[in-house]
Amino acid sequence: MAFLGLGVMGGPMAGHLAKAGHDVTVYNRTASKGDQWVGEHGGRSAPTPAAAAAGSEFVMMCVGNDDDVRAVALGPDGALAGMAPGSVLVDHTTASADVARELAAACAAKGVGFVDAPVSGGQAGAVNGALTIMCGCDDEAVFARVRDAVAPYARACALLGSAGAGQLTKMVNQICIAGLVQGLSEGVNFAQKAGLDVDAVVAVIGKGAAQSWQMDNRASTMAKGEFEFGFAVEWMRKDLGICLAEADRNGARLPVTALVDQFYAQVLARGGRRWDTSSLVHLLQND
Amino acid sequence: MAFLGLGVMGGPMAGHLAKAGHDVTVYNRTASKGDQWVGEHGGRSAPTPAAAAAGSEFVMMCVGNDDDVRAVALGPDGALAGMAPGSVLVDHTTASADVARELAAACAAKGVGFVDAPVSGGQAGAVNGALTIMCGCDDEAVFARVRDAVAPYARACALLGSAGAGQLTKMVNQICIAGLVQGLSEGVNFAQKAGLDVDAVVAVIGKGAAQSWQMDNRASTMAKGEFEFGFAVEWMRKDLGICLAEADRNGARLPVTALVDQFYAQVLARGGRRWDTSSLVHLLQND
Repeated sequence: MAFLGLGVMGGPMAGHLAKAGHDVTVYNRTASKGDQWVGEHGGRSAPTPAAAAAGSEFVMMCVGNDDDVRAVALGPDGALAGMAPGSVLVDHTTASADVARELAAACAAKGVGFVDAPVSGGQAGAVNGALTIMCGCDDEAVFARVRDAVAPYARACALLGSAGAGQLTKMVNQICIAGLVQGLSEGVNFAQKAGLDVDAVVAVIGKGAAQSWQMDNRASTMAKGEFEFGFAVEWMRKDLGICLAEADRNGARLPVTALVDQFYAQVLARGGRRWDTSSLVHLLQND
Repeated sequence: MAFLGLGVMGGPMAGHLAKAGHDVTVYNRTASKGDQWVGEHGGRSAPTPAAAAAGSEFVMMCVGNDDDVRAVALGPDGALAGMAPGSVLVDHTTASADVARELAAACAAKGVGFVDAPVSGGQAGAVNGALTIMCGCDDEAVFARVRDAVAPYARACALLGSAGAGQLTKMVNQICIAGLVQGLSEGVNFAQKAGLDVDAVVAVIGKGAAQSWQMDNRASTMAKGEFEFGFAVEWMRKDLGICLAEADRNGARLPVTALVDQFYAQVLARGGRRWDTSSLVHLLQND
């Protein structure tokens, strides 16, 4: 197997493949990180995506954005240049549905399978091998092979439709979270301004119709103003940008998602680039 | 015991008191409803709140809004006029924190206890005796007595602070729900516009950071455009109005809550007065 992109997500994901006994060849744009990974996990490091991919039945990648995906997969030394018919490219990057369809077409032209497979579960999910993987694929048999291949780092792996459907599902996830976290932020800040004990309030309302994963896991840290962990605001903005661009194409209105994206821009302006998405409450607590 | 206000919530709540063996005297503005309740549950119907309250250790009320609360509790024939020192008035209406404090003061002047005790759990919670009750009370001993008294229709009953704290907690609940349901609406509509199967998407993302009670219980009906059930938009607007007025006082900004309130106004304009709060998605599905 090959794994391209050893960031905070890709590094531990590739590690799980090695731990599962696979012979893993890795590629990373900053080569020293690839060597470090090999030092910890074994396997080999390759100088280009094509070299890493050569001879692998499965090539996983997890990079930054659409441009990175195109460069790593389709560039002159990109993964596809090294892949043989019958092998499969799996893209774990959160990217646009367009780039997923573009990769699917390029792969199909070479007889290579493709699955867009963005993940949720964050860094903790990657480290613990407990990611949720949302897949789009034009071929169910290819998906079935990939589901087995990614099992070492998956808690769940579902096929949602043809190429791009994985990305679209991840977009739905981020859209739901945006409005939810802003609502929770307004609730937590209102509770504080009203002199209530946020933990006591959550203990009561967290059993009913206001309940959410975010309330269960973030209300308490929001009340304390703790944001140095979790899913970074700069990543959320990247993801929401993808959602808003896709909505322009499919005609779905996203009034609150667009507004929350602007609130995240304000969080960035206040130095919260690496803060958790729950830092929306910071704007309300400090205006 | 006395119960004042036999609406969709109060009627079944009072019924649970009767089923628990209490001798219940009821009052309802439309007297025929009181007689109907007595026909089903026994007890007695009284012509005024004061007459219903006379001789009762506990007087529960569940009426429409602040003005109704004032009329039923403090009017010339209001509950307080019939109550003796040592008895307790429990207001289950979702109302302002101001009216709660006003009632607490009026009760205190007569040696009567007061608990503001708005509920969540909806009509189903009232019918099934499984409401969550959020209490504000200046006297813990009074609260402890009330907790036992409301047990027949409570799944949970918590003291959140002094008089008004129950209402403030209910406000936090509605604020959290407003942003959450709008985010979910945008997600569901986006999924539909993107050609995804909403139930399949929810089965995947409903296990992670986007999870919510609303997603678990409403995403599927939202996708189908089913809104003829649940918590009515007109009630939600009343509640959000209370939240926005209180925020003007305590300085908490509610940008998305205020926006969602306007969206609910649009739902009302489209004939959705009795639709469930999840009908926000209708605006996106039909623009």
